[in-house]
This record gives sequence, C-alpha cells and structure tokens, in this order.
Amino acid sequence: MLQVLTKQISNQELNLLAYFKLQAMSMENLALFTDLYELTMGQSYFESWNAKATFELFVRKLPPNRGYLIAAGLEDVCNYLLNFRFKEEDLEFLRKKGFKEEFLEFLRGIRFTGDVWALPEGELVFQNEPIIRITAPIIEAQIFETFIINTVNFQTLIATKASRVVNSARGRPVIDFGSRRAHGIDAGIKAARASYIGGCIGTSNVLAGKLYGIPIFGTMAHSYIEAFPSEKEAFRAWIKSWGVDTVLLVDTYDTLRGVRNAIEVVEGLTGRKELKGVRMDSGDMVKLSKEARRILNEAGFVSTKIFVSGGLDEYVIDDYLNKGAEMDVFGVGSSLVTSDDAPKIDIVYKLVESEERGRLVPRMKIAENEKITLPGAKQVFRIEENGKYVKDIIGLSTEHLKGEKKLVRIFENGELVYRLPSLDEIREKAQTELSKLPEEYKKIRNPATYPVEISEELIKLTEKIKRSIV
Amino acid sequence: MLQVLTKQISNQELNLLAYFKLQAMSMENLALFTDLYELTMGQSYFESWNAKATFELFVRKLPPNRGYLIAAGLEDVCNYLLNFRFKEEDLEFLRKKGFKEEFLEFLRGIRFTGDVWALPEGELVFQNEPIIRITAPIIEAQIFETFIINTVNFQTLIATKASRVVNSARGRPVIDFGSRRAHGIDAGIKAARASYIGGCIGTSNVLAGKLYGIPIFGTMAHSYIEAFPSEKEAFRAWIKSWGVDTVLLVDTYDTLRGVRNAIEVVEGLTGRKELKGVRMDSGDMVKLSKEARRILNEAGFVSTKIFVSGGLDEYVIDDYLNKGAEMDVFGVGSSLVTSDDAPKIDIVYKLVESEERGRLVPRMKIAENEKITLPGAKQVFRIEENGKYVKDIIGLSTEHLKGEKKLVRIFENGELVYRLPSLDEIREKAQTELSKLPEEYKKIRNPATYPVEISEELIKLTEKIKRSIV
Repeated sequence: MLQVLTKQISNQELNLLAYFKLQAMSMENLALFTDLYELTMGQSYFESWNAKATFELFVRKLPPNRGYLIAAGLEDVCNYLLNFRFKEEDLEFLRKKGFKEEFLEFLRGIRFTGDVWALPEGELVFQNEPIIRITAPIIEAQIFETFIINTVNFQTLIATKASRVVNSARGRPVIDFGSRRAHGIDAGIKAARASYIGGCIGTSNVLAGKLYGIPIFGTMAHSYIEAFPSEKEAFRAWIKSWGVDTVLLVDTYDTLRGVRNAIEVVEGLTGRKELKGVRMDSGDMVKLSKEARRILNEAGFVSTKIFVSGGLDEYVIDDYLNKGAEMDVFGVGSSLVTSDDAPKIDIVYKLVESEERGRLVPRMKIAENEKITLPGAKQVFRIEENGKYVKDIIGLSTEHLKGEKKLVRIFENGELVYRLPSLDEIREKAQTELSKLPEEYKKIRNPATYPVEISEELIKLTEKIKRSIV
Repeated sequence: MLQVLTKQISNQELNLLAYFKLQAMSMENLALFTDLYELTMGQSYFESWNAKATFELFVRKLPPNRGYLIAAGLEDVCNYLLNFRFKEEDLEFLRKKGFKEEFLEFLRGIRFTGDVWALPEGELVFQNEPIIRITAPIIEAQIFETFIINTVNFQTLIATKASRVVNSARGRPVIDFGSRRAHGIDAGIKAARASYIGGCIGTSNVLAGKLYGIPIFGTMAHSYIEAFPSEKEAFRAWIKSWGVDTVLLVDTYDTLRGVRNAIEVVEGLTGRKELKGVRMDSGDMVKLSKEARRILNEAGFVSTKIFVSGGLDEYVIDDYLNKGAEMDVFGVGSSLVTSDDAPKIDIVYKLVESEERGRLVPRMKIAENEKITLPGAKQVFRIEENGKYVKDIIGLSTEHLKGEKKLVRIFENGELVYRLPSLDEIREKAQTELSKLPEEYKKIRNPATYPVEISEELIKLTEKIKRSIV
C-alpha cells in the first residue's frame, strides 16, 4: 500500500515538473530567460535613468576557419519580442529575490515598444557588422540581450557549419542526422532548421519536419538488422514493409556481404534491379564505397545510391572525395549540430547610442586591452562587381554610400513591419548570397578574410568620441 | 491601409508560429522528437515482429581529457517517458508522410509500459558502463532513442565539464554565466541545472533559478557603466539602488582606476570600507588581480572579493592560479555550457537483448572495424577500498559480485518506482562520489584511465555469442 502511494505521489510530482518545464519552454514566457544582471541593472535604471538606447549585435572575429557566417535566428527573435511579457509568477519569483515593488509594477506593464533593424536570415555576415540593431528604453533592450545572443549565436553557428559541410560535398546532398547529439531539445529542432538554411536537403528530426515543413529522411538502424535472426531476413521484412524506394543499412556485420545480401533480397522479392540506396556507417569508408559501387554496378544496380554516415564533417567529406570515394549522399550528425570545431561565436551585444536630453548620442566602450566598439547606429553597405561581392563598408545608418544596404527595418515602435520570409525563401537567399561570394572566402581551411571597411564618417566619429573620453 | 493590414497579418502569423513552437517544446508533445528511422523501423516491426527488447545507453570512450563523467538527465527522461504519447496532430503529420493507418492506430495507443534501470543523476560513469537500460516492446524502445541520447548526452557533458572547472578553481566558487552562448533555450536552462550538479554554486539564468531553485547571481554589465556620463556616477547610482552587498564591474575603462573609483564611491556614500566584490572581465588578469588586491587591502577593503569572468575554462583558471592570481570567484560562460574542448560524448544506445519464444535473449553487434557491444542486460559493480573507488566490474544484471550495484530500478511496467531526488541531493551525491575518486582520474589534462573490468560470466557469454554468429 505504501509502495503504491509513493508511486502515485511521485507521478504527480513528475507531472507537475513536466508542466513547469512546458511553461518554461513557451515563447510567451521567456522573459525570465535572461541573466540576472539584466534585471538588477533594470531596477537601477528604473530608479535613475530609463532612457532610450541602441544596442547592436555583432561578431568581433569570425570563428577559426570561417570566412563568412550565415545569419539565422531572426524569426525567433521576432516571436520573442512580440510575445515579451512577464507573468505574475515571474514577478512573484523576482519579488522573493528582493526586487522592489515599484520596479515589479513597471515590469508588469513592459511590452516591446522599440525599433529593430536586422540582416534578414540567410544573409552573409562578416566581422564587426551589425546583425541586429535594437533601439528601445534601456531596461527593455538589456533584458533582451541574453535571449537574442543565445538565439542568433546558435542558429548562425549551425547555418554556417551546414553551408561548409554542403560545400565540401561538391553538389552531393547532405542531410542533418544530428538530433541526438544536439545540446538539448531546442537545439535539435533549431539545428535542423538552421542546417536547412545552410543548404542541407533535410533532417532526420520528425518534429522539425512537422514544425518547419523540412523534408525528413531516415530508414533503419543497426538495431533493426540485429533484431532479426539474419541480415537477409531483416532486409526482407523491410522491403515487404517499405518497397524498394528505400535505403538498406549494409554494415551491421560485413559491409560488402551486406551489399550482396541487399542485392539478393531485392532481386528475390521483386525480380528487378532497383533499390534507392545502401547506407554504410563504419569501416574503411573510401575503400568500401568503391567496392560497393563496383558490386552494385556489376549486379545491374547502377542507379542505387551510396549513402554514408558516421563521424562526418566538412574535413572528412573533403578528404573522402579527394580520395575518389564513391559516395552519393551524406548524413552528418554530431559535428554539424554542435559545430564541434568551433562551438561558439564571439558574438556581442553592445551599447552604441544612448539618450541625452531627448536625442540619441553615439557611445563606445574603451576597455584596456580590448578592441573598441564602433559608436553609433550603423548600416552595412555590400559592394558587388560582376555578380560577385568585393567588399563591405560599415557606415552610419544615416549615410548614403554605394553598395546594397543590408540591414532592413523589422520593428517600428514595437510593431512588426517586416514580412517574415518562408524557410524556403531563406534557404534560397543563403544559396544566392553564397554563390556571389568568391571561392577564396569559402575555403573550409584558412579562408581569406573578406574586406570590411569602415566609412570615413564613422572613423571620424570614432576618433572624436575617443578624444572626448580620454 | 495596405501597410497596416500587412502588419496585422504578419503579427497573426507570428503568434501562430509562436504557438506551434510552444507546443513543440512541451514534454507532453515530444513523441515526434525522434529520428524518422525510429518510426519507419517501428512500422516494419509492427508488421513483422513487435517483441520486447532491451537497450542500453553507454559511452564507448570518454571524451579527451576526461577521466570520468557525471551522469545527468535522468529526471527529464522520466518526465518524457511518463508523458509519452502521440497527439492527433502528430498522427496526422505521419499520415501525410505515408505511414499506414494500422500503424498510426497502434501509435495512438502507445504509452510507456516498460522497465528502466539507471545510474542516478550525480553518479560517476566510466567507459562501457550502462547509464540507462530500458526493456520495452521494441517499437517504443526505438522511438525513445533520440530523446534519451540527446538528453543524457548534453546534461552529462555539462555536469562533467562543470566539475572540471570547479576542480580547477581549488575551492573557490564557480558560477554558470553561459546562458547566452548555450546552444538554444533548452540548453541554457539545462546547462544551469547540470552545472549546479557538477558543483557550481549557481547561475546567472533567472529562469533556471525559478524552475530549479538554483541560486542566481549577477550585478551589472559594461553597458551599464557606459550608460552614465562617468564610471563614478554609474557606481554611485548602483550603490544607491543596491547597497554595498554587491559586485561592481571595474574594467570598463581602466581596471585599476575602476577599483579606486569603486573604493572612493563606497566610502563617499557609506563612510565604510565594505563592498562585496569587484569584477574584472578583460586585460592581463593575473597582474590586474594582484594589483587590485593590493589596492583594496591598502584601502582597508580586505573582505572585498575579486570576481573574474571572460574567456574562462578549467585550463585558464588552473593557469591563473598557478601564477598566483588573486581571484576569489569565477564566472564561467561559453566554455562551460558548450563543453567547447569536447562538445559531444561518444554515447550510444544499443540493443543488448531481444525476445525469442517469450524470453529475452542476449544480442550483440559485430560490425567490422568497430568495437563489439557487450550482450545482455548488465549491472555495474563499483569496488571501494578505504573510502576510495578502486575499480568497476561490468557484469550481467543477474550476477552477484562484490562491489556496490550502481544501476537502480526506475520504472517497472511503465510505472515510476523511484523517488526522484531533489537537485540539492543530486549535487551532494556528485560531490560525495567525486570525493571518493582518486585524484589521478580527476586531472584536467591526461587523467589516468579508471579500471573497468568485465565479469567472467559476461566474457563467456560474449565469446559464446560471437562463436554462434561468426
């Protein structure tokens, strides 16, 4: 009886926990997904000076081996800003943590009321270029910092990594297989989306397929083969269930015997030489792929594709193809979704303007031993010649320079004034932009540094402010 | 008018999107957070053979520089299993993807009905040791794979990384500052929890504080200092708002001048030599920390702590302390929450038993060029001598060997029969276990390999099955 009771209580507790976490994950309730100092600063601003300020999100230095980044994450930032509000339970929590009543009352009424300019998702980003610029009362703008950096950092990281892997595959399709090694549930879903933006043709993640309409891929695991008394019996059960427009996993016991078994089972069941693909995931992949191709061709399975997975990234794929591997489709997992050779971007969110006597005044930080932050609200001007990008100029938002202005208006006085593109539009955008970027910046190792210049006006402003501080 | 209309539509679309994502994130609806092949295999099993099977989650090889791992993520796995079900909209999506009616009908009724054994959170894990063992009808057990690997991989990774960082700090407190660089929202929250398990004293993430009761920390950013006409004015506003039990950020312009300004402002406002701390985030940290300590001591601020953040990890902290840095508290961000020197674990979920004529029979995979998977349901026996762990033995779950049995029963026939410990209990558990692990396995570079033996019975079984396959 006691045992039963304990079980019931535990189950109830758990359901409560699950409910809490459900709440935690909803976009509506991410106001508390922020660093405590954003709120302690908020209370101090509230008591002294809650004026308008402008913050810009940018990358000081591209991660190792990256010659460009692909912007991603703006859609989630828009959702977050539109839904931003504190719930009573959030305020109750903050009350317990010692925040003052007047400030909590102020937080209760907070809605996003500011302006946003941003690089649309799928656009290329280079060092020091603003990705998102937010002008809002400083308390709001600060609270958003943690979420915005988190979201743009991760999705940009993965869209970029995906584009590198896709590039290394030289036209062969790449599929995201990384959900299990992504850093949490949100990362698994967002990595699928970002990978698709970066050029993958789809994902193994069913939920990402449902949420975003991304094509989903997958057939069987080694465990399926092992669950049957023999590999052939497993293949037979599979073909009966799914037909031949499928991919058979051939490396559970012996890869080449697996290929022969696949051929035998398909011919035995259908009398035809048709099978979508075979997949191999272990062993000496270059050698095995060549032998598998020969065996398939000799048996008349010339249209059967060789799918490869297991420990892939852009460096491995490049190496395989350099060695003449016979590989047609790549499933890439852990390295793609963790961007394991560069799992973070040096992305920062800095104050560039603040209000003084009713107008926004350019600001900059000059910490010792650290690069300065360029002051003022900025715009990126990208210059194209003969269909290729040649350089960018970072200028003030008020300047009129040659080149395409890359930051567009997203919010005006808290209202979304930008049509969010579909995921396929974003993906196409990324591909178009990448096609305009010269090859030297796309090399997977030691790419050239794309030239990003600072406009004369911005240089002058920077010098002027520097002199006024020092 | 058209402009206004467009805006309204966009807002509606966005709210819908946000709603979808809310749904996606709830534990109740994570059934589709799985790789497509789990479901295609499921349909095939459904048509041929949906018998019981046992899967074990384990790590073949510890990541570089890791001599141990700390298990984390079980609580989320329990929540997931308790809440596992497909919603109508999930089934509708699968229907569109070509799954058969009979199988969808079967999925509609799926609830977790199996048995689970696991290492509790906070326990140490070594190579090849089962962390979670699930026995269930094979369709269920397969669908769970993606979620379970994802959850245990990430949380274990971060609990382990945190313990390394805490270890390097030699008794000084470490705080998780990583939310902004974690891979998504879920990762930010779960990293805070896992870091706390690993020994951090708290997090900057307010939501994690609310959800898990983790202590939260944070004061101000550089932007706060910059938002005022001078550093002193910023400090003054801060102290007025928060008193002196606070940490002032001193490196915005010039670190040591910042320390002197902090002293001057505190003395000026309060007439006392009391301030909780100063924080520095850039520059030559070792040198600056020593000089800051000297200045603070000379001014009588002997109890004021020096907080350090910026680019920290276990290697940097170790180096700083070796150089005699005067640092009291560490705020660690990006490296901690991405485990950047090892952003993934070689964690796998393998079939070890399947049903044959009504009973579970041990299974193993023998792929060429790959390590075999040990067959059968297993238990970990940990042997302690004089308060220290000396070795583990992996045996069959039915064996009675010396040493403490580390896997405990979690679910029985789909019912939770385990009391989930509180987060503080888990954290304490981890600290106790770590204290029993000899230092050689805890070195942050090139730790010794903890001995994990295989029981004689398990060796015999492995040989027997190998002979029967080959």
